[in-house]
Amino acid sequence: MPNISQKGSQMPESPIRKLVPYAEAAIAKGKTIYQLNIGQPDIKTPEVALDAIKNNNLEVLSYSHSAGFQSYRNKLAQYYSKHDIPVNSDEIIITTGGSEALLFTMGSITDPGDEVIIPEPFYANYNGFATASGVKVVPIQAAFEDDFALPAISEFERLITEKTKAILLCNPGNPTGYLYTKEEIQQIADLAKKHDLFVVADEVYREFAYDGITHHSIMSIPGLEQHAIMVDSVSKRYSMCGARIGCLVSKNKAVISAAMKFAQARLSPPTFAQIASEAALDTPQEYFDEVIEEYTLRRNILIEGLEKIEGVKVAKPKGAFYCIAELPIEDAEDFAKWLLENFQLNNETIMVAPAAGFYSTPNTGMNQVRIAYVLKKENLERAIEILEKALTQYKNR
Amino acid sequence: MPNISQKGSQMPESPIRKLVPYAEAAIAKGKTIYQLNIGQPDIKTPEVALDAIKNNNLEVLSYSHSAGFQSYRNKLAQYYSKHDIPVNSDEIIITTGGSEALLFTMGSITDPGDEVIIPEPFYANYNGFATASGVKVVPIQAAFEDDFALPAISEFERLITEKTKAILLCNPGNPTGYLYTKEEIQQIADLAKKHDLFVVADEVYREFAYDGITHHSIMSIPGLEQHAIMVDSVSKRYSMCGARIGCLVSKNKAVISAAMKFAQARLSPPTFAQIASEAALDTPQEYFDEVIEEYTLRRNILIEGLEKIEGVKVAKPKGAFYCIAELPIEDAEDFAKWLLENFQLNNETIMVAPAAGFYSTPNTGMNQVRIAYVLKKENLERAIEILEKALTQYKNR
Repeated sequence: MPNISQKGSQMPESPIRKLVPYAEAAIAKGKTIYQLNIGQPDIKTPEVALDAIKNNNLEVLSYSHSAGFQSYRNKLAQYYSKHDIPVNSDEIIITTGGSEALLFTMGSITDPGDEVIIPEPFYANYNGFATASGVKVVPIQAAFEDDFALPAISEFERLITEKTKAILLCNPGNPTGYLYTKEEIQQIADLAKKHDLFVVADEVYREFAYDGITHHSIMSIPGLEQHAIMVDSVSKRYSMCGARIGCLVSKNKAVISAAMKFAQARLSPPTFAQIASEAALDTPQEYFDEVIEEYTLRRNILIEGLEKIEGVKVAKPKGAFYCIAELPIEDAEDFAKWLLENFQLNNETIMVAPAAGFYSTPNTGMNQVRIAYVLKKENLERAIEILEKALTQYKNR
Repeated sequence: MPNISQKGSQMPESPIRKLVPYAEAAIAKGKTIYQLNIGQPDIKTPEVALDAIKNNNLEVLSYSHSAGFQSYRNKLAQYYSKHDIPVNSDEIIITTGGSEALLFTMGSITDPGDEVIIPEPFYANYNGFATASGVKVVPIQAAFEDDFALPAISEFERLITEKTKAILLCNPGNPTGYLYTKEEIQQIADLAKKHDLFVVADEVYREFAYDGITHHSIMSIPGLEQHAIMVDSVSKRYSMCGARIGCLVSKNKAVISAAMKFAQARLSPPTFAQIASEAALDTPQEYFDEVIEEYTLRRNILIEGLEKIEGVKVAKPKGAFYCIAELPIEDAEDFAKWLLENFQLNNETIMVAPAAGFYSTPNTGMNQVRIAYVLKKENLERAIEILEKALTQYKNR
C-alpha cells in the first residue's frame, strides 16, 4: 500500500475538532451542550444578502473572473475607503474564505523552510496553512496578564532570521479578543520596514470593536504600502461563515500578481456566494449597531460572570467575540472532555476550546480555555452557571 | 521592499489566460469573438439545482461540516454506486471545486521534491497545483497519431524513480478528449500495484462519453482500493462551473484522514453551492440525454469541419468537449494572437487555446491548438469558416 506524505501526516488536527467525538457521544446520550467552543455566530445573515440569492436569475452558473466579480471588487474598494483603507479594485482578489487568502499569501511570499513570526496564542488554522505551505511558524508569546497586548519589539527582533519573511497579526485577535492600538500597529510597521518584512494582517473581525475603540488597519499606515497584506472575510461581519468568501488586499503589485496565479489555477471563487457578499455590502448600519450592542452585552455578561467564579481569571477582550480564561485546573483538555463525558447539570453541559491548541509553544496555556460568546444572553448566563458548578465538582472528583 | 517567494514567481500563468488582454483589446474595437478556448459550457444549469437555491430558507448562513453536508455525501455515494463506483459517504470529502480536491490530494500524498507522472498534453492547471505543492510533474508524451491513447507501460516504467508517488490521469481527457479503455485502466492499475504508487484520476467529464462507449473509473478496479484516488466536480456535469463544488474520493483511510486535516483547516466548502449540488443529483436523465446528443452533434460538426480544411489534422475525441487539432502553422501562440489582433471576417474572429501550454515538455505541440466545442451548432459552423479563411490569410500574410 502506498504511504501518505510527511506533510499529510504532519498536518495538525484542529484543536476545536478534537472534542467533536466526545460531544457527539454526549448528544447521543440526550445531553444538551452549550457550545462556547466555536466562532459560529447565531446572528442572522442580513436580509439583503439572502434576498439577492433568492432573487437571482442565473440560467448558467458559470465561472466568474479569477479575482472575483469586478462589480463586487469596485464596491468593496468603496467599503474599504470608508474604513480608512485606500485601495482600488485591482488591489483586491476575492478568495474562497479568508482561509484561501492566507494560503495564497503564504504561497506568494514564502518558500518551504521560510519563517513567519506570529504572536501566540493565535488562530489555530494558521498552523495548518503553514504546514500545507512548508512554512515554519515562529511563535512569540503575548502575555495573559497584559490582555495579550503586542509583545515588546525587542522580542520580535530576537526572533528575526534570514528565513523570516513576514509577521502575521490577527486584529482584533482570535482567540484573544485583543485589539491592537495605533501605536502597536505603527511599531510593527517600523519593524517590518527596518527588516524588509511583510506584515500580514488578518482583519476579519474589524467591525467587532467595543467600548468605542477604533480599529486600526495595517493598510492605513503611510509608507507601509509595499509591506502590507490584508486578509479579510465576510464570514463574521455578516454572519455568512458558510458563504466562503474572503479577500486578499495589497498595494504591492508583485504580491497581487503572484497571488493571481494561484487564483487562476483554481479558476474562480464561488459565484452564488459572491452574489450574496456583494449584496451584503448594502447592509444598513443599524444591523451592525444592533450586532455590536448585542456582543457588548454578551461580553459583559461573560466577563462579569467568569470573574465571579473563584479561581477564574480573564484577559478582557476589546474586540472579536472570544476571550481566553484561566481556570483553576491543570489540564484544560482533560477538563473539556470531562465536561462532555462525565458532567451534567439538569442534563446540560458546556463545550469549551482548550487554549493549548492556540499556542505553538508546547505545554503552554494548559490551564486556559477559549470561550466564544456567540450565544444569546440567557444561554450564556446558564453556561456560566454550569461552568461554576462543573469546576467545583471537577476539583472534588 | 520585501520580495515575493520563488514559488510565487514560479507559479505558471494559465495558457488560456495569456491571450485575455488581446481578446479584451479586440472586443474594445467592436470585434465579435467565438470563444473556442475555454471549457465554459453554454448549457443551462438544471432547474432543480437553481430552484433549490431560490427556495432556500436559511436564516444564518453557517459553516457546514468540513467534509460537506452528510446528506449530500449520502446521495453522492448512491450516484457513484450507479456508476459502478462502490463507495460510502465516509470515503467522500466535498471540496471547493475539483481544484481543491487536487490540492488536497497532492498535499496528502506528496512532499516537496516528489514526482507525479502525467500523460501529456494535460489540463494546464495541474502545473499550478504541482508548483503550489512543490511537486515535480514528470510528463509522458501521448501520441497525437493515436488520438492520445495511453503511452506504453514500459515508457511509464522508464520514468519511475524513488521520488515517484503517483500517476495522474484525466479521463475523459482535457484537452485531448481521449477516453481510456478498460484495458488501459487495468494496465495502469497493475503498474501502480507493482510499484506501490497512487493513481489519481480526474474524472470530472465522466458523463461526456460519446458513440456509446462506456467510461471506466479507476474506482471500479478490484484490488486497487488502497491506491485509487478520484477527483470529481459538478462543474461540467451540471454546467455549474461557478458553484465551485467537487470532491475527493478514496477507500484508503489514511488518505481520507490526511485530506480531512486540509479540509478542516479551511473550515468548509461553500454552503449555497452544496445546496445546489445536492439538488442537482435529482437532475432527470433526459437532461443528460439531451446534453450528450447536443455535444455529439457539436463534436461531429467540429471534427468534420476541421478535417475539410487543408493541412488540418484532428485527434478524434471520444469524450469531454475538447479536441486537439494540428494546424498548418509553426507557432500556434502567434497565430492565436494574430487571430485576435489582425484578423476579422465581417468583424468576427475566433479565440483558440495554443496547445503548447498543455504540454510540460518545452517546445512541444507548437502547431497544435485546443478547441472546446461548447458553442451552439451555428456558431461552431461559423467559427470553422473563420478558421479556414484565417489560415489562408495567415499563410499569405
